[in-house]
Amino acid sequence: MEDGKSSSQSAGKPIRCKAAICREAGEPLVIEEIMVAPPCPYEVRIRIICTSLCYSDITFWKLTVPPACVPRILGHEAVGVVESVGENVNEVAPGDVVIPTFLSECGECEDCCSKRSNLCSKFPFKIHPWMPRYENSRFTDLKGEVLYHFLFVSSFSEYTVVDINHVVKIDPAIPPNRACLFGCCIATGVGAACKVANVEAGSTVVIFGLGSIGLAVAKGAKLCGANRIIGVDVNPDKFEIAKKFGVTEFINSKDCGNESLSQVAKEMTGGGADYCFECVGLASLVQEAYASCRKGWGKTIVLGVQKPGSQLSLSSFEVLHSGKTLTGALFGGVKAKSDLPLLLKRYTDNELQVDEFVTHEVKFQDINRAFELLMGGKCIRCVIWMDK
Amino acid sequence: MEDGKSSSQSAGKPIRCKAAICREAGEPLVIEEIMVAPPCPYEVRIRIICTSLCYSDITFWKLTVPPACVPRILGHEAVGVVESVGENVNEVAPGDVVIPTFLSECGECEDCCSKRSNLCSKFPFKIHPWMPRYENSRFTDLKGEVLYHFLFVSSFSEYTVVDINHVVKIDPAIPPNRACLFGCCIATGVGAACKVANVEAGSTVVIFGLGSIGLAVAKGAKLCGANRIIGVDVNPDKFEIAKKFGVTEFINSKDCGNESLSQVAKEMTGGGADYCFECVGLASLVQEAYASCRKGWGKTIVLGVQKPGSQLSLSSFEVLHSGKTLTGALFGGVKAKSDLPLLLKRYTDNELQVDEFVTHEVKFQDINRAFELLMGGKCIRCVIWMDK
Repeated sequence: MEDGKSSSQSAGKPIRCKAAICREAGEPLVIEEIMVAPPCPYEVRIRIICTSLCYSDITFWKLTVPPACVPRILGHEAVGVVESVGENVNEVAPGDVVIPTFLSECGECEDCCSKRSNLCSKFPFKIHPWMPRYENSRFTDLKGEVLYHFLFVSSFSEYTVVDINHVVKIDPAIPPNRACLFGCCIATGVGAACKVANVEAGSTVVIFGLGSIGLAVAKGAKLCGANRIIGVDVNPDKFEIAKKFGVTEFINSKDCGNESLSQVAKEMTGGGADYCFECVGLASLVQEAYASCRKGWGKTIVLGVQKPGSQLSLSSFEVLHSGKTLTGALFGGVKAKSDLPLLLKRYTDNELQVDEFVTHEVKFQDINRAFELLMGGKCIRCVIWMDK
Repeated sequence: MEDGKSSSQSAGKPIRCKAAICREAGEPLVIEEIMVAPPCPYEVRIRIICTSLCYSDITFWKLTVPPACVPRILGHEAVGVVESVGENVNEVAPGDVVIPTFLSECGECEDCCSKRSNLCSKFPFKIHPWMPRYENSRFTDLKGEVLYHFLFVSSFSEYTVVDINHVVKIDPAIPPNRACLFGCCIATGVGAACKVANVEAGSTVVIFGLGSIGLAVAKGAKLCGANRIIGVDVNPDKFEIAKKFGVTEFINSKDCGNESLSQVAKEMTGGGADYCFECVGLASLVQEAYASCRKGWGKTIVLGVQKPGSQLSLSSFEVLHSGKTLTGALFGGVKAKSDLPLLLKRYTDNELQVDEFVTHEVKFQDINRAFELLMGGKCIRCVIWMDK
């Protein structure tokens, strides 16, 4: 057993390191020493450099019903260095800088071979407690108890093991406290605007929820040349922040008077927006977004993560008679290996700025502070540095 | 007052002619003499040559709650000859052969100017009892009672008045018992496949409901080069009929055993169809269609007319995680004046055959027989000849 500082020494052996464990739903994470098993065939063990906190981590941290399970290592937005690789891994080698991704790209299945899908069929997305290829875990605590994985990433650990189909090699020159954001937030938001919606230049966009995903949608819509980007939030302070991301107008959803949110949005846009993005995760808000988009060609794109079992209700009459479109965008329609490098290139080419997303940075030992900051509403992204 | 046989004599005067009136919901239509007022500015009076019966006529004939109203002249799939025109009508002249359409194309509004919409904003689609431009009727019975319009067409009358924005001039050489079908059935079905869904060559299509609209979707999907066209119906006799329209396989929705319809459809298609079309008008069937289409890129297109107030319910999880798309297709996304001539050209070029749709033809005096035939399930389209 090694402490994992040197890949040549640690390869093939368990690594003892620190991880932040969710032992009870909604309770502060507990930093403990754990054992991280070596990678199995087709797996990669990664030393996490930094990880950022996404609202989906909070959603699953709070969740008390299945698919929740504890004890679990959360975290799914990170960057790290390959420490060692399992058999049959040729794509990356120890020392490579990589982004672990919650969506797989096997490169072989019908979905991966199609330009139309980013939803790998060989290793499908699940809220699953195990490794994608084997029904087991690479984590145990020092008492030998199994710790569950989260979204095939589990980045709230100094070391994690990820399937090779969930690993994207990146340019090591990219600052890690920027690169990590591409593992969820930037890909999801920018991808939803540019790839799924394919926002047309000159168009009008309404974004429901100005959290980090909503702000990333604004970035994407601006990149696509949207003319008006209207942000909707319950917190009016968000407008000042959102302006930096391209948001041009604001609707306070608590301040619509006798009108519904969609009535206000339709009035502001002269009949409805070209594109509406739901970034909160409320079925009722998807309905408002659908009602807010323009008849004839309006598209509603769902990005928000709903509670399990939620149902969307839409008027049949409106579906038939309005010519509107409803679609979902997991990971912004981005294919991990094929598209993330292109998105990162837009960043290194200074076409896509992401600095504004990082409002806070904390040491790993202060990870619970990151949860407080994100829930407090002033934080967009808090980067957690593992080694500082 | 004239009997309307000569346009030069009748122009500007009321015409006395026969119409089939719906006086009570669900009761046989009553053929009566009525008065048809001359066209107002921007209106056209048309002598109907023939009209076919569409299932939507039956839906509204049966309907007992608003937007139903009686006494009403139903019918919206027809072809006729311009008898006279109101002021400011330059686009057509007496003697021109025209298709009256339930969707308008003003050519000026934002929707008409956009390639993305077929839903004119200046004269929007409504289930409305009046002329689109004026809140009144052109029909009265011989006692002077107002008779309501239906879908701005009301073709179950020897003469009708239609707004110029609802009139498409066509080649008079096209047989009228074929041309009339383009006023709803062919445009809706072929348009939904070719224009709204934009079915890709080689793809798999499932059509829910093998009525005339579903069969027209099959025609369209075949034109687009679909490889497999699976028809779903409660009536297994429909499969033999549907083969002529391009349907290659069949699911009897009453014979799925312990499986849901979507489970059967997914098994047959190896995970879901590329395109699903709901052509019945049942919210529950839209849900099955959505569930039957393929993750990653599956599109569900709603064509069926639902009862007023129906709600569609979809799983939020599936909407977000499946990457599927839901959209509606009124009149198949077809722009009346811009696209119908192109569709008619595909017919005259022998690229699109429509003969198989016309299974029955009756005289106007036998119009109630057309209702019986269509409801009996053996009839696809019954053409009603006004002058025979």
